Amino acid sequence: MDSVKTKIMIVGFGVVGQGFFDLFHSKKESLGLNNVEITEIVDKKYGYIEKPPIDLTKKINGKTDYPLIDPVEAIRNSDASIVCEFTWVNYKDAEPAFTHMKTALENGKHVITTNKGPVALRMDELKTISKKTGNNVLFKGTVMAGTPSFNIVKLIPGAKVLRIRGILNGTTNFILEQMSKGSDFESALKEAQSLGYAEADPTNDVEGFDSAAKVAILSNYFGWRHKMSDVQREGIKNVSREEATHGTKLLATISKTEASVAPLQLEDSDLLRHVNGVMNALEIETDSLGPIYIMGPGAGRKETAQAALTDLMEILSMN
Amino acid sequence: MDSVKTKIMIVGFGVVGQGFFDLFHSKKESLGLNNVEITEIVDKKYGYIEKPPIDLTKKINGKTDYPLIDPVEAIRNSDASIVCEFTWVNYKDAEPAFTHMKTALENGKHVITTNKGPVALRMDELKTISKKTGNNVLFKGTVMAGTPSFNIVKLIPGAKVLRIRGILNGTTNFILEQMSKGSDFESALKEAQSLGYAEADPTNDVEGFDSAAKVAILSNYFGWRHKMSDVQREGIKNVSREEATHGTKLLATISKTEASVAPLQLEDSDLLRHVNGVMNALEIETDSLGPIYIMGPGAGRKETAQAALTDLMEILSMN
Repeated sequence: MDSVKTKIMIVGFGVVGQGFFDLFHSKKESLGLNNVEITEIVDKKYGYIEKPPIDLTKKINGKTDYPLIDPVEAIRNSDASIVCEFTWVNYKDAEPAFTHMKTALENGKHVITTNKGPVALRMDELKTISKKTGNNVLFKGTVMAGTPSFNIVKLIPGAKVLRIRGILNGTTNFILEQMSKGSDFESALKEAQSLGYAEADPTNDVEGFDSAAKVAILSNYFGWRHKMSDVQREGIKNVSREEATHGTKLLATISKTEASVAPLQLEDSDLLRHVNGVMNALEIETDSLGPIYIMGPGAGRKETAQAALTDLMEILSMN
Repeated sequence: MDSVKTKIMIVGFGVVGQGFFDLFHSKKESLGLNNVEITEIVDKKYGYIEKPPIDLTKKINGKTDYPLIDPVEAIRNSDASIVCEFTWVNYKDAEPAFTHMKTALENGKHVITTNKGPVALRMDELKTISKKTGNNVLFKGTVMAGTPSFNIVKLIPGAKVLRIRGILNGTTNFILEQMSKGSDFESALKEAQSLGYAEADPTNDVEGFDSAAKVAILSNYFGWRHKMSDVQREGIKNVSREEATHGTKLLATISKTEASVAPLQLEDSDLLRHVNGVMNALEIETDSLGPIYIMGPGAGRKETAQAALTDLMEILSMN
C-alpha cells in the first residue's frame, strides 16, 4: 500500500537542512517527484523526526520534544535509500560527518552532502567505500553552493581542463570589497558578521581554510589529487586597504602542478577582479574553449539547498 | 563485418564543419566513440566525400575532384543516423539549412546544427517534424558556441528561469571595446574585419540581427515563444565613442514579457560591463539562485565544434 519508492533521510537540520526540506517540497511536483519523500530527519539539537509534516520548518524553532537519538544509530536503522549529510564542517578529522556518510554507504544508501570536511579531507576513504558498496557520494554543494561549478564539465564533454582560477570564499571577497571602499579590516569583518556572512570565529574564512578545502575538492574532482594540507595557503589579514582598492582578491589557483590560495592583485581586464560582494567565481581553462567563467552565489539557505536538489536529481537519474 | 554502429554525415564543410571533423577525431578515443564514425560529407563547393580520411582537412583546400551532389539528395540516400548541418546562416527563410534538416528528420536521422537561421526562424516547424518522426534537433552551438549557455539549466533542476540578460554578439562587443579605447566606429569595424571577427557585409552583427536571432532561440528554449520578428532590435551604429567609454554594451534582454536587443550603458557594478573583446556572456536569473553568470567564447573553429560535440554526446546518451 506504500507507493513511496525513494525515501530520503536528512542528517543535520540547520540552515541547509531546513532550506533543502523547504526547497524539496516547493519543487517536488514540478520535478515529478511524487514517489520521493523525506521520511526522517535526525539532528543533534532537535532530535529524531519521523514522517515530518511539510510545514515543519515553520514550527521547529525552539521545539525539543522529539526523541534524541544518536545519528549513527538512526542512519543504521533507517530504510531510506538516500542520506543527506548537512552537519557542521570540521577541518580536523571531518567528524561527525565522515562517520555519518560512511555508515550510510555501508548500509546501502547513497549520500548527498554540502559538507566540505569529508570531501576535502577524506575523499579517498569515501571513494573506496563508495566503490565497495556501489553507493554514490555526491557533493555539488561543497563548491559554489547551487551555482554550477565543477559539474559544468558535463556540458563540455571531451574538453580537457587545464587550469582553474577562482574566488571561492564569499566572506573574504565581501571584506575585501568593503576595504576597497575605505573600511579597515576589523570594521569590514564586523559588518560581514552582522550580515551573517562571517561566523563568530572567522578563522576558516579569513585564514583561507575554506578556500583551501575547495581547492582540494576541485583538485580531486579533476584528478590532480592535491590534499588540503598540500594547498599553499595565505589568508587576507595582511592585505592593505590600498591593495584592496587596486583589485586584490583572495585567489585560488589549481592545476596539475599548482594548488594555492593567496591574495593577488588582478588586472582590470581580468573578469575575476569585478566579482564583488559574497559572489563566487570560477575560471575554467580548457583545450577546446580557452577560459570560460561561471559566477554566482556560493552560500545561502536556498542557494545551497539547490545544490542538494541537483545531486538528488542526478542520483535519481542514475538509479 | 561492419562494427560501426553510429554513422554521422556532415552537411557544409566550411570552418565549423572542418573544425568539428578535426575535434571529433582528436577526442574520439577519450570519449569512447570507437563505434561512431563520420562516414559522409557533402558540401556545395567540395562535393560529396565518402569515407573521408582523418587528415582530410589538411588536404581539402583547393580540392574539387569529388563529385558534386545535391545535399538534399545526399541526405536522402545516406545511411547515417545523425546529420550535422553546418551551412551558412540565412535570416530570410533559413534555407537551404531548413530543408537539409527537414529531409534528415524525415529520413530517420537526428540533427545537430550550429546554424541560427532554422532555429531562430522556423523552430515550430522543426519541432513538429521532430515530434512526428521521433528524431531530435539539437542546437547548442547557436548560442555562445561551445560555452555552456541555455543548457546550464540542466545543472540546476527545479530552478525557474525568470529573466536573461546577455552579450551575445562578439563582433559588436569587440567594436564597442575598440571605440571605448578611442577608435571611431569605421576603424573598429575594419579592425574586426581584418581579424576575421566581422564579415565583409557586417549587417547581421552591427544591426543586431545575429543577437536578435539568439534572443528568439533563448526565448523559445525557455518557453516564452518570442519570434525573431518580435524582438525589439537596435544595432550599434548610433553609439558614440563617449557612450562606449562609459560602458555601453549591445545588451540582449529576454523574459516572458520582453525580448530586445539594444545598446545600453551598464553600471560599473554590473559584471556584464566587464565582458570585453569577442567574449559572450549570459546572466540567468532564477528563483533559487538569483542571478548567475556564464561567460566564454561565442564563436571560433574549435569553440563551435565543441558545441556540436556536446550535442553529439547528448544524442548518443539518449539513444
